[in-house]
Amino acid sequence: MTALIALDWGTSALRAYRLAANGTVTARRELPHGIMKLPDAPNRLMSFRLAFDLACADWLAADPACPVIASGMIGSAQGWQPAPYLPAPCDARQLAEQLTRVDVDDQRCFYIIPGVQQTNLLPEVMRGEETQVFGAIAGDERLRDVQASGRESLIALPGTHSKWVSVTQGKIDRLRTFMSGELYDVLRHHSILGLTMQPPEAPDWQAFAEGIRVARQQSGNLLGSLFSVRTRLLCQQLSPQQQPDYLSGLLLGNELAIALDGISADTDITLIGSQPLCQRYQRAMAIFECRNPVYIAPGAAEQGMWQVARYASLVA
Amino acid sequence: MTALIALDWGTSALRAYRLAANGTVTARRELPHGIMKLPDAPNRLMSFRLAFDLACADWLAADPACPVIASGMIGSAQGWQPAPYLPAPCDARQLAEQLTRVDVDDQRCFYIIPGVQQTNLLPEVMRGEETQVFGAIAGDERLRDVQASGRESLIALPGTHSKWVSVTQGKIDRLRTFMSGELYDVLRHHSILGLTMQPPEAPDWQAFAEGIRVARQQSGNLLGSLFSVRTRLLCQQLSPQQQPDYLSGLLLGNELAIALDGISADTDITLIGSQPLCQRYQRAMAIFECRNPVYIAPGAAEQGMWQVARYASLVA
Repeated sequence: MTALIALDWGTSALRAYRLAANGTVTARRELPHGIMKLPDAPNRLMSFRLAFDLACADWLAADPACPVIASGMIGSAQGWQPAPYLPAPCDARQLAEQLTRVDVDDQRCFYIIPGVQQTNLLPEVMRGEETQVFGAIAGDERLRDVQASGRESLIALPGTHSKWVSVTQGKIDRLRTFMSGELYDVLRHHSILGLTMQPPEAPDWQAFAEGIRVARQQSGNLLGSLFSVRTRLLCQQLSPQQQPDYLSGLLLGNELAIALDGISADTDITLIGSQPLCQRYQRAMAIFECRNPVYIAPGAAEQGMWQVARYASLVA
Repeated sequence: MTALIALDWGTSALRAYRLAANGTVTARRELPHGIMKLPDAPNRLMSFRLAFDLACADWLAADPACPVIASGMIGSAQGWQPAPYLPAPCDARQLAEQLTRVDVDDQRCFYIIPGVQQTNLLPEVMRGEETQVFGAIAGDERLRDVQASGRESLIALPGTHSKWVSVTQGKIDRLRTFMSGELYDVLRHHSILGLTMQPPEAPDWQAFAEGIRVARQQSGNLLGSLFSVRTRLLCQQLSPQQQPDYLSGLLLGNELAIALDGISADTDITLIGSQPLCQRYQRAMAIFECRNPVYIAPGAAEQGMWQVARYASLVA
């Protein structure tokens, strides 16, 4: 018996989870149908419906009454139906109170979880990460203890647009976006820095560490250190195979110089994301001599959707 | 009677100057034949020769004994013939002692001025800017006075890769490169930030000032503020037409936060480059409440080549 179908529906991928009544995942699938890569159909609405069917029509056929919940860019202006942003600080219960209902057809519907925005400082937005943050807290005893004690949890979600989220007493109270992933991509493929680069056979951790070291020394001065990707090649301090990981180190080092500035030594840091990328961040933090404990949280998206569905009484 | 032909031969453009015996420019022309945009010919050498002929064959025909000097990327690995980099600190006389001779054919030759590199700090290189720096000093009484007094001149050359050069007692002793121009270009054309941008009819100085203000407040934290180009659109704090100048302000503001950090209030700043870009920098520095006097130096490239040619005894 399926208790919930949960869709982590982002820009490039659509991940679907089937959960049992005790919240465990009984099946999962990943489709390449994020909102910018929908399957072909006569119009956009039909593309959304087709992707939805591919993700979970068979699961729903077996359990027609099973609720479906979704999070991520599916609720953006380019998504199926716009879902609101809730202002930070906010918690999982508030997200659950503001679900946006989408009617797939006469028979079926699903609910989109709101995003979160910050308006008091430099404006920030996220969609999907808020759900992962609450999923990580629900799924991790250590994080629950930190929240119960009133201390801050710092949760990083590395990716194209890395998010760093501060959570206190169960509420997201601050978020920051670093465009490190996208900047790596555009510099590698569209700038003079990428012209000479060659892919290494395996990550070059020495070049990566050197990039981190320079970024740390220059404490966040990215504009003034980027050109060294080129000059170090000219000065034979880097090979074409080392340039990609040196650039990666410069960018991650700059992100960490800002994100770790001023955090107290007893704040623990939780990483959410793909294993290789999270491990790269862990390595970067070690080179940064970061003394904070660093954890990786698995299953954050599906656990977050489960939590929100429970608060919304979609599941018992 | 022509005393010198000077070629400012960069990546995208080739500017040619004809100078009289008193150092004044009697003719100038600009060709779109930088080393990456050479005219079509059966091979690269013939393309270089063709561009050279288009630039100055008629001037040389009238004065066959007239010396020709060149500066810029023409001396790079992708240029006509590699010219060395001299290590900073160095002066115009040292550049003149290390010219690289290029034989165009049996009859004609020209000389390439070396570039400058910095190896003691983060490695830095330049080709062409060193000549412009010495040209600005030679052509400007105020700059000559500063150099004679032993004080520092700070000379900025905004562009694709902005250079900030410190000169003391006639020697270039430090250089820094900021990839602001190229970053603006790749972010505008290849990142999510550019997706929604629309060109303004005229520069939007209010959006530009806001970008500068954010960059200044965040003191060089570029990675953490770039995403605001997008979020401010989502929060209706910026229009699609305002996004380009806001991004320009963020980048220039970040450059200034680093370049102006720690300079003394009596250091004057000289800008070399296109008039609209230099004026944009002047405007940015004013918003930055920069108290240093800021000047724009005209004619730097041709005057620099004239100076070096004199030290090399190519002209009397």
